[in-house]
Amino acid sequence: MVVVMAPEADQADIEAIVRLVHSAGGEAFVSRGVSRTIIGLVGDVDQFGALNLRSYPGVSDVVRISVPYKLVSREHHASRSVIRVAGVPIGPGTLTVIAGPCTVETAEQTLTAARMAQAAGASLLRGGAFKPRTSPYAFQGLGEVGLRILADVRAETGLPVVTEVIDPASVDLVSSYADMLQVGTRSMQNFALLQAVGSAAKPVLLKRGMNATVEEWLMAAEYIAQRGNLDIVLCERGIRTFETATRNTLDISAVPVAQRLSHLPVIVDPSHSGGRRDLVLPLSRAAIAAGADGLIIDVHPHPAAAMCDGDQALTGDDISELGEAVKTLPQLLGRQLTPPLEPAMIG
Amino acid sequence: MVVVMAPEADQADIEAIVRLVHSAGGEAFVSRGVSRTIIGLVGDVDQFGALNLRSYPGVSDVVRISVPYKLVSREHHASRSVIRVAGVPIGPGTLTVIAGPCTVETAEQTLTAARMAQAAGASLLRGGAFKPRTSPYAFQGLGEVGLRILADVRAETGLPVVTEVIDPASVDLVSSYADMLQVGTRSMQNFALLQAVGSAAKPVLLKRGMNATVEEWLMAAEYIAQRGNLDIVLCERGIRTFETATRNTLDISAVPVAQRLSHLPVIVDPSHSGGRRDLVLPLSRAAIAAGADGLIIDVHPHPAAAMCDGDQALTGDDISELGEAVKTLPQLLGRQLTPPLEPAMIG
Amino acid sequence: MVVVMAPEADQADIEAIVRLVHSAGGEAFVSRGVSRTIIGLVGDVDQFGALNLRSYPGVSDVVRISVPYKLVSREHHASRSVIRVAGVPIGPGTLTVIAGPCTVETAEQTLTAARMAQAAGASLLRGGAFKPRTSPYAFQGLGEVGLRILADVRAETGLPVVTEVIDPASVDLVSSYADMLQVGTRSMQNFALLQAVGSAAKPVLLKRGMNATVEEWLMAAEYIAQRGNLDIVLCERGIRTFETATRNTLDISAVPVAQRLSHLPVIVDPSHSGGRRDLVLPLSRAAIAAGADGLIIDVHPHPAAAMCDGDQALTGDDISELGEAVKTLPQLLGRQLTPPLEPAMIG
Amino acid sequence: MVVVMAPEADQADIEAIVRLVHSAGGEAFVSRGVSRTIIGLVGDVDQFGALNLRSYPGVSDVVRISVPYKLVSREHHASRSVIRVAGVPIGPGTLTVIAGPCTVETAEQTLTAARMAQAAGASLLRGGAFKPRTSPYAFQGLGEVGLRILADVRAETGLPVVTEVIDPASVDLVSSYADMLQVGTRSMQNFALLQAVGSAAKPVLLKRGMNATVEEWLMAAEYIAQRGNLDIVLCERGIRTFETATRNTLDISAVPVAQRLSHLPVIVDPSHSGGRRDLVLPLSRAAIAAGADGLIIDVHPHPAAAMCDGDQALTGDDISELGEAVKTLPQLLGRQLTPPLEPAMIG
Repeated sequence: MVVVMAPEADQADIEAIVRLVHSAGGEAFVSRGVSRTIIGLVGDVDQFGALNLRSYPGVSDVVRISVPYKLVSREHHASRSVIRVAGVPIGPGTLTVIAGPCTVETAEQTLTAARMAQAAGASLLRGGAFKPRTSPYAFQGLGEVGLRILADVRAETGLPVVTEVIDPASVDLVSSYADMLQVGTRSMQNFALLQAVGSAAKPVLLKRGMNATVEEWLMAAEYIAQRGNLDIVLCERGIRTFETATRNTLDISAVPVAQRLSHLPVIVDPSHSGGRRDLVLPLSRAAIAAGADGLIIDVHPHPAAAMCDGDQALTGDDISELGEAVKTLPQLLGRQLTPPLEPAMIG
Repeated sequence: MVVVMAPEADQADIEAIVRLVHSAGGEAFVSRGVSRTIIGLVGDVDQFGALNLRSYPGVSDVVRISVPYKLVSREHHASRSVIRVAGVPIGPGTLTVIAGPCTVETAEQTLTAARMAQAAGASLLRGGAFKPRTSPYAFQGLGEVGLRILADVRAETGLPVVTEVIDPASVDLVSSYADMLQVGTRSMQNFALLQAVGSAAKPVLLKRGMNATVEEWLMAAEYIAQRGNLDIVLCERGIRTFETATRNTLDISAVPVAQRLSHLPVIVDPSHSGGRRDLVLPLSRAAIAAGADGLIIDVHPHPAAAMCDGDQALTGDDISELGEAVKTLPQLLGRQLTPPLEPAMIG
Repeated sequence: MVVVMAPEADQADIEAIVRLVHSAGGEAFVSRGVSRTIIGLVGDVDQFGALNLRSYPGVSDVVRISVPYKLVSREHHASRSVIRVAGVPIGPGTLTVIAGPCTVETAEQTLTAARMAQAAGASLLRGGAFKPRTSPYAFQGLGEVGLRILADVRAETGLPVVTEVIDPASVDLVSSYADMLQVGTRSMQNFALLQAVGSAAKPVLLKRGMNATVEEWLMAAEYIAQRGNLDIVLCERGIRTFETATRNTLDISAVPVAQRLSHLPVIVDPSHSGGRRDLVLPLSRAAIAAGADGLIIDVHPHPAAAMCDGDQALTGDDISELGEAVKTLPQLLGRQLTPPLEPAMIG
Repeated sequence: MVVVMAPEADQADIEAIVRLVHSAGGEAFVSRGVSRTIIGLVGDVDQFGALNLRSYPGVSDVVRISVPYKLVSREHHASRSVIRVAGVPIGPGTLTVIAGPCTVETAEQTLTAARMAQAAGASLLRGGAFKPRTSPYAFQGLGEVGLRILADVRAETGLPVVTEVIDPASVDLVSSYADMLQVGTRSMQNFALLQAVGSAAKPVLLKRGMNATVEEWLMAAEYIAQRGNLDIVLCERGIRTFETATRNTLDISAVPVAQRLSHLPVIVDPSHSGGRRDLVLPLSRAAIAAGADGLIIDVHPHPAAAMCDGDQALTGDDISELGEAVKTLPQLLGRQLTPPLEPAMIG
């Protein structure tokens, strides 16, 4: 941490800061410049944060230097992690595809979508039973009925299930059906929910908030990790910008940036970022080429009849084109498509 | 709703859309242009939304025309509402000031801050007992102990209490102490929480999400209203932009814009938007001049020792300057500062 | 300037940086932390910038501490400046209103608009002869014919003229008619134009780029100042954000922020930021209350027939309401509305 | 174009709009809804724009339906264009790499960088002689001396030259040396410059403004095309968002989006968008996979000594890794790397 003194700060101001830092158990190194003095702080950053240094006379700015997350940081955990979802790996060396319907509507639709997911190269099934919707008048999901459908389709297809949880009170319920808990973009700073999934015994798929910096995203992961759950997969899904041609702007750079800062795997959601079916394939290819550890994709047997986000669900020929891309592209980057689990491996 | 057909759409594509709209109980008016045809839809927009019209052949775009919220809209409720918090009005004709410490730390600090709030013209006391913090290592609030302190200070000062609730599970607890429930910026799309406060018997202060459009903000209010609670006050607190000189960018235009679209009162938080003490006064004045129905402001007896956001808390001379501004400025705009409750009125 | 070393940087890396800084005539203060070392640099920042310190082994980040502008900074020029436009002051103590049509269309329209401007409290006349338009098919302005109309209206009304210049090649031409040169939002980083107006003998109204940080805006002013022209007035006119309810988001905080960083006057354009007539009055009031040194406002006798931006031009009753606001509000803030020039003062 | 009437609009308001549209030579189709009436307009959109329909009583909103650009639109030019730069193609079927130093510093540095560019697979040489710099104190380029160096290096290596022009007054000078004129991100709405390069006899590389929507970018291309020059290549180079981990946010979706809307080729600049050397390779791969028609990349023999943007220039091993990627990846997408010109083909 660096304290920047104002040009008009005097010797007493500087000494006051040095004393404060010492009182918090830290060390302070003073660099006197021509127009300004800066003070380098060494010690426990969390302690320094509590000092409110900005409030002291003569202080112009306080600049944090080190990263505020620890458990998810790559600084003390250099090798990138592999997270396993009911045996399916997500991490370096592989490309793992998660696919399925945005929303579970019926048993038949979900099973058909799961078969499409398999054709698209998926080894994990996605599907929403609890849906966070912008409008209170929109379909809110089937709830536990939907979870049961997902479990049945898992039994039928062998695909472990990834599904969203939106309320701390239902984490236990969702955990009893799901293989991986998804925290959605609007919940990324729902700290009560982060703590609840941090105490669950299932891996977590943490979507980036559409307005969150990479640092805030990693801090949200730190919340989960701090409760003891380090099985976290990060998911870039587009951020909010001024551009309106796409629903959100896929921040493709966030993939290598987050992989450099954190040891956690990073996957991409090309369906929700663009919000348009015709962008899913180019964005999927871009994500693989940028080094993503996986993809999560909406598919639907009849997009025009979908109860949610039908505009972006893949169907028909797109499925086979995606299946082809996820097989060939990763090899150029030293990865292999994660195969579905062997039937024997499914619990 | 308007369906814009692609230039290459043919007669069959157009007729298919018209049939669909009829099947959903609506009417469709076709306007054939030189290069494009547009179809105007009349009927129930929620029904049309479920049709996934964008998925049909020949459809280039679907443009929503009417607003998606109803209960909070001014379309069917032309006069602006006054919301009462334990008898204190917020709405047209008055300027209501809510002030207090960002976080309740001790009984003494809270009482002193409440006295400062009164000096600043406040008729309501703010103070956080449950704090949503970006870092899991930061102070998370005193919880119920903090609520009890707030209740004691209310008894002492006569100021009704506004405090944040961050988890649906604690809405009942917080309601048992507070006079108004605050939903914070990071919770604006926590739909489980919105539904929970929508069922509570207390008025709600709904902060705008830092990445939310005005429309999404009003949709969040609609969630609360839909559960039966129409005692909602909207609070603009800055949005996230590329500018880094301030913590967030106060969207001052949102005040008149939201007041035109919704009948609910709109207040401004100049402390959290700027994140800097030296901006609180100019932004408070700007908010009053723009027509805000109130202000919510951080004050602290010893900002340098504050456990949260000490950098932005008003103290000392600023308090009297603010007290002066909230008395004189509103009169130029046809408003009066809301006075504190008469002792007799306090339950 | 502070160099932050990576955790894995070794002693040789640190010494290399220290040597480089010494070779550039600076001093380097090393603060060794538990996990990182930081190096405080003292000396000529421009020299350090040329060292590309980020490119050296072991360097994790380079943080600039001091501001990159000098001539327009308040650090070495503590009192706020008053700029005079043909004798009309803009700066502390006064509120100066610039008003007129967005575009000069005819002599009659311009004269009528100038009379409306006077009724609205203006002491300077705005009007565009060269218009930067997003579409090549939109009206591009009357050019020199428009400048002549402005000069005629000045002779008739006594209002000095503010008009935009969009090309370095026409700075001399525009200067020969105008009293103040406006640099528009899309030209804020047109460096050839900045240098040209920096060499002109007229004051400059520098609009903030809709995507520019306050720092970049001040750097654009520095370009002008560096060529010898310090008669610069800054104009906040809204920035581009995700919000679509308004054309741009007026960054009201930028007024006190820029006034604190720079000695130059800061005015506000409430017409172009909102892009809606119904927002002009509330935003004008907010700007005055936030401490702006002036306003620049579109007026038009027949907005529905305007060739440019008719949607935002004030007319009719709004004019008198604005005239009232600019007279009464500034007094509460220790300012007086700048009166029109005495006839005798007009050259 | 669609006019949305306010709920309170009456029959006279509606008829007034219909009459206006007829008077402008258009047709108006009225759709009366339960709460609102909408009017579909058919005819010349530019004519309608001049009507200021928003200013009329009872009008709530005016929604444009068709795109405002024509010459660069794919609506009337379905097949994607190939642009040739001194014989080197940019467009579908190929991947064309432009590489070189950000700034021309010396003949030797430029020649060495050109050799590196060739090793990276480039068939065109980039290099700046006129540099738009945020600070007036930063190096502004060698000017014509730099152009001469580029011409000499072209003679030596056979690489045609792409270089930036920042002022309409120097378009002729730059055209006399360059094979392609670059319009930079800060100049994208410098309309005088767009018109000047529109009259030049050289192809134009049009960078997207860092704050420009895709539509505004295409409108800027339309400015150039309208003057008779349709040899335009679009270049996505990152947009400004709230994220600070990268200099700008590469909008990878803009590649397929712009290719769908316009017949012009679209290339990507991974160096300036990220502003970090370690992101250039992943972003280059992502751009190719998303379907970009080319790349433009900074290389420098000694990044630490670069006079501009040394932090992002590729060097050493990165060059061969990039050379490998541009050879293998495009084939998976049905493209071939554009080879350098045969010596015989160089004029």
